[in-house]
Amino acid sequence: MATEKKQQKFPEIQGGGSLMIAWQVRGKNVLVVGGGEVAAGRIVHLLNADAVVTVVCPSSGLNPEVAHRVSSSQVTHINRPFTPSDLDSQDWSMVLVAVDDPAASTLIWKLCKERRIPANIADVPPECDFYFGSVHRDGPLQIMVSTNGKGPRLASMIRRFIAKQLPKNAGRAIETIGELRVKLREIAPNPEEGPKRMSWMKEVSDKYSWEEMCEMSEEDMHNLLKFYGPAKVPAFDDLRGMRAGAADIDKLDVFDGSFGFCVGA
Amino acid sequence: MATEKKQQKFPEIQGGGSLMIAWQVRGKNVLVVGGGEVAAGRIVHLLNADAVVTVVCPSSGLNPEVAHRVSSSQVTHINRPFTPSDLDSQDWSMVLVAVDDPAASTLIWKLCKERRIPANIADVPPECDFYFGSVHRDGPLQIMVSTNGKGPRLASMIRRFIAKQLPKNAGRAIETIGELRVKLREIAPNPEEGPKRMSWMKEVSDKYSWEEMCEMSEEDMHNLLKFYGPAKVPAFDDLRGMRAGAADIDKLDVFDGSFGFCVGA
Repeated sequence: MATEKKQQKFPEIQGGGSLMIAWQVRGKNVLVVGGGEVAAGRIVHLLNADAVVTVVCPSSGLNPEVAHRVSSSQVTHINRPFTPSDLDSQDWSMVLVAVDDPAASTLIWKLCKERRIPANIADVPPECDFYFGSVHRDGPLQIMVSTNGKGPRLASMIRRFIAKQLPKNAGRAIETIGELRVKLREIAPNPEEGPKRMSWMKEVSDKYSWEEMCEMSEEDMHNLLKFYGPAKVPAFDDLRGMRAGAADIDKLDVFDGSFGFCVGA
Repeated sequence: MATEKKQQKFPEIQGGGSLMIAWQVRGKNVLVVGGGEVAAGRIVHLLNADAVVTVVCPSSGLNPEVAHRVSSSQVTHINRPFTPSDLDSQDWSMVLVAVDDPAASTLIWKLCKERRIPANIADVPPECDFYFGSVHRDGPLQIMVSTNGKGPRLASMIRRFIAKQLPKNAGRAIETIGELRVKLREIAPNPEEGPKRMSWMKEVSDKYSWEEMCEMSEEDMHNLLKFYGPAKVPAFDDLRGMRAGAADIDKLDVFDGSFGFCVGA
């Protein structure tokens, strides 16, 4: 009988995609060259990510939205066309170009590459370190749809489709889990408890439905955290039963006799 | 009567997010430091984006999946721990670190920043130029779900939820639109026709449902392109009717008398 090598199951590689990432620009300087409609869209993405944005473009070239961002001081404005020295005036974390001037665009791309500044030249895929997609936003939840340049209109169609399908308050459920994690670290700050914290949070995520997660109140969280000590996770109905002292927590049979730690919050 | 300034409707800024981008690493060198489970996941993301991946990690530290990537030559392997000179041995487009050694991680982060190499130190948010999310992939379609670090488990829950909701063949519909755009450029390559091409493609995207887009065959596309000349878009039922010469295309009333260009494909 021939030896048969056991086939291991690892994810199959499917090339041709992009590396989808959530870039961190909070408090970092980003230069936007141009002030038209495309620039306006880029600026929204950047401000939603708390970037410090500078727009270089003659005032006459600003569309109403970009002009509004300037007049309301959401961005800094340099009222003239781009000059190469702009790239050296600050430590730019990123440069986005959206001007109708292929020669100028290519020059800026080359200057950025010499300085190792990540850059995106709108509508010129070979002169882009990264592309943008269509983004759904709901609080801490961000969903980006990319068609890898094959159908930008389909990307926003799919984004709208997803937005409609998502449970209401999906963003809220994520906030809740985030808050629970923070509170848990407050009552159990010991680094050595990392694995216990992680496995308890995993159990919480697994046990409750999305709808339940959305419904969870401050009071529910406070009660839920009492179960971390004995490493239990009550049914959501039990949490409901504990509201406003409706049930005596110590009588719930999810607890065994070993329960005896104090919530520090 | 007091002058009332007309309120302009521009997208409201909702800070606290990330800049969601599709990073281009095709053919670029990426260094992965570490060979455990997290590294294995990073490597899949990188290979799916056609990056040229080098893994630096002693063989003893490779998990079965990373060992498989090495033995099948999907990645280059440097069989020893990381040393700073690794950063200068190639023009790294990106460095991803996933080792259980906070001091080494921080050192690599600092060295990357000195060299302006974008980097991600797993599980150390302040030492990350970017985060990863949970990614759904279907051909050219990529959907990333990020909870901005608040709930990684929820991110993959939401990603699975979205995958289930999406129409079957969503990726295929995008391929179809992409192919149609390429074929259109073949039969109407004149740059001056850009606006006509764009407005026709927009009409196609608007007119057909997703299901119709998924159903579109090579033959349908061939027939559809005949309508570009007169700048019309037939109902999808008309395209169905034209299959295998079932209808005489010239008798369809979507055409007026001016139709008379030749498909070059």
